[in-house]
Amino acid sequence: MRPSKRPADSMREVSLTTGVNRHAEGSCLVKFGETQVLCTASLEERIPPWLKNSGKGWVTAEYGMLPRATGDRMRREASAGKQGGRTVEIQRLIGRSLRAVVDMGALGERQITVDCDVIQADGGTRTASITGGYVALAECLKWMEARSMCQRKNVLKGHVAAVSCGIYKNEPVLDLDYAEDSVAETDANFVMTGAGGIVEIQGTAEGTPFSEEEFTKLMALAKKGIGELVEAQTAALGDS
Amino acid sequence: MRPSKRPADSMREVSLTTGVNRHAEGSCLVKFGETQVLCTASLEERIPPWLKNSGKGWVTAEYGMLPRATGDRMRREASAGKQGGRTVEIQRLIGRSLRAVVDMGALGERQITVDCDVIQADGGTRTASITGGYVALAECLKWMEARSMCQRKNVLKGHVAAVSCGIYKNEPVLDLDYAEDSVAETDANFVMTGAGGIVEIQGTAEGTPFSEEEFTKLMALAKKGIGELVEAQTAALGDS
Amino acid sequence: MRPSKRPADSMREVSLTTGVNRHAEGSCLVKFGETQVLCTASLEERIPPWLKNSGKGWVTAEYGMLPRATGDRMRREASAGKQGGRTVEIQRLIGRSLRAVVDMGALGERQITVDCDVIQADGGTRTASITGGYVALAECLKWMEARSMCQRKNVLKGHVAAVSCGIYKNEPVLDLDYAEDSVAETDANFVMTGAGGIVEIQGTAEGTPFSEEEFTKLMALAKKGIGELVEAQTAALGDS
Amino acid sequence: MRPSKRPADSMREVSLTTGVNRHAEGSCLVKFGETQVLCTASLEERIPPWLKNSGKGWVTAEYGMLPRATGDRMRREASAGKQGGRTVEIQRLIGRSLRAVVDMGALGERQITVDCDVIQADGGTRTASITGGYVALAECLKWMEARSMCQRKNVLKGHVAAVSCGIYKNEPVLDLDYAEDSVAETDANFVMTGAGGIVEIQGTAEGTPFSEEEFTKLMALAKKGIGELVEAQTAALGDS
Amino acid sequence: MRPSKRPADSMREVSLTTGVNRHAEGSCLVKFGETQVLCTASLEERIPPWLKNSGKGWVTAEYGMLPRATGDRMRREASAGKQGGRTVEIQRLIGRSLRAVVDMGALGERQITVDCDVIQADGGTRTASITGGYVALAECLKWMEARSMCQRKNVLKGHVAAVSCGIYKNEPVLDLDYAEDSVAETDANFVMTGAGGIVEIQGTAEGTPFSEEEFTKLMALAKKGIGELVEAQTAALGDS
Amino acid sequence: MRPSKRPADSMREVSLTTGVNRHAEGSCLVKFGETQVLCTASLEERIPPWLKNSGKGWVTAEYGMLPRATGDRMRREASAGKQGGRTVEIQRLIGRSLRAVVDMGALGERQITVDCDVIQADGGTRTASITGGYVALAECLKWMEARSMCQRKNVLKGHVAAVSCGIYKNEPVLDLDYAEDSVAETDANFVMTGAGGIVEIQGTAEGTPFSEEEFTKLMALAKKGIGELVEAQTAALGDS
Repeated sequence: MRPSKRPADSMREVSLTTGVNRHAEGSCLVKFGETQVLCTASLEERIPPWLKNSGKGWVTAEYGMLPRATGDRMRREASAGKQGGRTVEIQRLIGRSLRAVVDMGALGERQITVDCDVIQADGGTRTASITGGYVALAECLKWMEARSMCQRKNVLKGHVAAVSCGIYKNEPVLDLDYAEDSVAETDANFVMTGAGGIVEIQGTAEGTPFSEEEFTKLMALAKKGIGELVEAQTAALGDS
Repeated sequence: MRPSKRPADSMREVSLTTGVNRHAEGSCLVKFGETQVLCTASLEERIPPWLKNSGKGWVTAEYGMLPRATGDRMRREASAGKQGGRTVEIQRLIGRSLRAVVDMGALGERQITVDCDVIQADGGTRTASITGGYVALAECLKWMEARSMCQRKNVLKGHVAAVSCGIYKNEPVLDLDYAEDSVAETDANFVMTGAGGIVEIQGTAEGTPFSEEEFTKLMALAKKGIGELVEAQTAALGDS
Repeated sequence: MRPSKRPADSMREVSLTTGVNRHAEGSCLVKFGETQVLCTASLEERIPPWLKNSGKGWVTAEYGMLPRATGDRMRREASAGKQGGRTVEIQRLIGRSLRAVVDMGALGERQITVDCDVIQADGGTRTASITGGYVALAECLKWMEARSMCQRKNVLKGHVAAVSCGIYKNEPVLDLDYAEDSVAETDANFVMTGAGGIVEIQGTAEGTPFSEEEFTKLMALAKKGIGELVEAQTAALGDS
Repeated sequence: MRPSKRPADSMREVSLTTGVNRHAEGSCLVKFGETQVLCTASLEERIPPWLKNSGKGWVTAEYGMLPRATGDRMRREASAGKQGGRTVEIQRLIGRSLRAVVDMGALGERQITVDCDVIQADGGTRTASITGGYVALAECLKWMEARSMCQRKNVLKGHVAAVSCGIYKNEPVLDLDYAEDSVAETDANFVMTGAGGIVEIQGTAEGTPFSEEEFTKLMALAKKGIGELVEAQTAALGDS
Repeated sequence: MRPSKRPADSMREVSLTTGVNRHAEGSCLVKFGETQVLCTASLEERIPPWLKNSGKGWVTAEYGMLPRATGDRMRREASAGKQGGRTVEIQRLIGRSLRAVVDMGALGERQITVDCDVIQADGGTRTASITGGYVALAECLKWMEARSMCQRKNVLKGHVAAVSCGIYKNEPVLDLDYAEDSVAETDANFVMTGAGGIVEIQGTAEGTPFSEEEFTKLMALAKKGIGELVEAQTAALGDS
Repeated sequence: MRPSKRPADSMREVSLTTGVNRHAEGSCLVKFGETQVLCTASLEERIPPWLKNSGKGWVTAEYGMLPRATGDRMRREASAGKQGGRTVEIQRLIGRSLRAVVDMGALGERQITVDCDVIQADGGTRTASITGGYVALAECLKWMEARSMCQRKNVLKGHVAAVSCGIYKNEPVLDLDYAEDSVAETDANFVMTGAGGIVEIQGTAEGTPFSEEEFTKLMALAKKGIGELVEAQTAALGDS
């Protein structure tokens, strides 16, 4: 029995709200249950040096947590003077995941920065960030298309969303919350496209190593969850 | 005529919402018009070294802005590796302002950290932070009193709130928004207690120096505004 | 009774000596009693990026204390790896104050950096820095005028000087020394022009909040002190 | 056809040499073809703060590259003033991988730090680091056992090794070298125990997303490679 | 002919003034011609960790330059966020030199920090710092002896002073000023005790390597100069 | 009697192996007994800003130690966030030493960076670095000459090598190993050219100051040692 009483293959309630920031070209407040992440997509007319004169754009991500997003207050990274290893890992993952569905040539020589700031954490902040970051990015691209700024149609090649699965009390379960995540034997994050392609898999045995069979079960759960997330993204974006 | 059509002595719509963070001992989302700051108060059973064995507690504040709180995306301070001069100035001001109304002996040897994170900026983020930070702090103290953790009653000696005033197109006006702030000749921040005592005054001539007479007018506006803010704090805290 | 036996409205002995650095375009050793600050003004043929092609110049300030300027040795900021919050606050104040009297268009596209290094501290280092920094800046501008480097006459629009006032044992007093500053209930810094315009006011209640009436008395003291400082500046610069 | 002419399921020549550092309690120079990593295991009688009085030890890893380990000289991280995101990611992975096979209670309250310094890079530095780091760690534990320092037998619960697989020109291949890695569509790192348990999986689509079927093929290659690496570890350690 | 018209074996005018800082236990303003360094010795009742319970004290030094001590303004190291390589080299040299004449057991478990801050630079700042730093240190020890704080007499085992020599236009000369130093082929710093023992020698060929014979001539000049400096130290300290 | 049983004027076994890195334009693994340093020379088509359009090149050096190069593990400087004072001192010395024998005009506007990374330390790492760094640099220049990249012949004006000498148990000895270095009364590093010119001398009294006579003996030992090192360099480079 999961602490939240959810069935093993059930996600928390997901909400994706667009238009939550008056300045950003795209924005989305994503909630996976009690986990809340504010995602903004910022368009800038500059490009990393290695892309100068390539005709291609770039999408990057940054991730942060408000100090009291967590049960105990964490030290502010701006005050500590550097981003921790976990932060660096997560923001690199978000950036790679979003880039997987962007046609950089169609974007043109510009950069979109997706900021994912965790307002409140209850497990799954990185998967919520990817899922909500995609929506903010898509909003930003709509904003650009409305201004005829893109080189061609379909800068986005498809949806991308992410979910975590894990083995909790010997049972594979979908979308771990903090109560589960902190004691799960195995924790795996899956990033997939709307078409079912795999963009990134990260599976880690926290205690006992896991078997290929267990991993296959986790992947099946992830596919189910990501299917639901892609539906929610479509609804939030008002696409038909 | 102000860009917002407000009369010279009129504040923007103020809202103070408590209970917006499930982890923090006290929290408040404060809005001064389009300016939004999330304030959390975190209780920690530790104390700065210089207060060890003093019987006294401490209240401190930290301030941050989400990268896209502003019209143009600003570099994340955690990524830049340090807090900028403006951030340092503001968080020191918030801390001093809140400490002015706390009986440190009644608090006991503990620290409360008030984090003020700007979700969206439209001028007046520091004054909104002080005003909302007070509410988060008061909520935290209620939480402690409910657990009989304080040394004696009335850890808070009174309210504290803040507002900015300025000279915009030669006219003294109350509660500058960004459109006014960016062109005002003079900008002054006032921090006052509910009883009308002055905690901090910071007045700066951006262009032409100002006169004592002008300053007196700004202070009169500030008193009016702070009176309204204290009422809003009282309502938000459900005090009679 | 003040520790120094001074009357309430009396400043410490002030001295402003120019020409104390063989390399700098302008320099001034300022003493407010035992407080000694070495101010140098350095002309550089460069400009902050945001002023490129504006036809305007820039004046900025940096502030530092020698490690043993104070009663106990303080850690060297260069060794600590960053400037503390107090340092950042003070050097921003000095810069704003000096810029208030400079005609940036007349200066042309160049930068003058005023370094204020505290050789010995006994209260009032920031106000001494502004007062002495003005003299160093004026010397630098004389040096430039002698070389016909300015765009037009009167790069300086007037004098600027600063003094602190405070409430010590319930009495408003002028020009706090360290013995007073460390126990004063209220501490206020005033920056004014020679013509009596207010450039910056910073008033802080260290303990009990103060009243508007008290603040008015502090400002009256400040006016008197700044009048004397402007006279001393005029004498030091050999102006008629 | 692979650039190295290797069959798709063939690893590069692997060599594991122990005893390569006169100071370290355990050491191993690992080569995966032209990739060379010097691994040392350093025993220290200290423990992270959160393990004080737990009776348990800790194993951690650090990773670095000599500036000219790569085709173009990279900036020295000590000179840049911080470890890059890639470094942080890799050393966290090495540490988690090694901890998966250590009985921390048997180790007692001590820390072993495994340093993996890349002398020459040609792809697969993180998997070589884990594989060689295991050997250095095992040597360190032998050194401790020879001095009767462990709490009980079998501090190591088994072997751990790692290999990368990828999809190169549409074909799944084992143990990517740099020429392959830099153009592979998909790159996956597998960390497994000698008993075939999975410790960590990290799969990333560099371009086109990959399918579950492709991933299954990569895992089959990884199992083969890790079997060979575990044999090489056993030989290097002189175990029967 | 030297730019200053000095004979080859002649030092610049040297002045050593004690009692120049009201807070420090010992202080000395040293001038070697136009080079001016303010030296303070600060006594602290703490000790580096590795000397705990050793019964021995420690002497360390820090070195800094005011930004406009030099012909062109240099970036403030506190603002740059770290001490440069040259600064680190020099302060290590000053510390080693002073420690060479201190009986650490007689000092007791305390630390004296000698700060050498260059007010104005014209070549020879490190040798002036050592020479003046010795005087500040000696003043500090007198202060301690007057309070019977030392474990035994003669904490100082002798004088230490330093001078630079160099080969300027093919001629060995004593006490290089900046005009000479910036073009000298060879530059050597000598640190010696009052008894003629060598504490430190640092000789560097800036252009053409130098010969042993040339080096011997530089050392002879150094002996002469240091003899004069030790006399000046004795006079400044009022010792007989 | 020396711990290693060597005669006083005898160096440890020296080995210089070229071609040890497949990427670098020049490389050398240098061993002075148990001290091992990996030196690589990296050619880059860039130049420090102050040499732009000068027609001259630049040679610089960086130095590092692997964390377990030493008896006790040292903290990784990349992790500590800065290079220590000793590292900075040493790499500046290596750079100056190598530049002393390079004709910068013949090199053309390019930079060669010589990285000296200590794989294992047993005293004399800086002198081994200079001696081996010279060989790596010479290899790099051969590589350039084979591609007709130099402006003229003989970019190298001669050999440069270094050795340490010291006074160990009152006897001057050549090439200190760690057992000697850690207790020597005096430690001196000599950098000389193949023609016997002195490039750099650094002598330090660790305890008792030393005499000129002692120093002369150390220099005689150094000359003998450097003669042998230059022979070894010639052999390693295959020059006639």
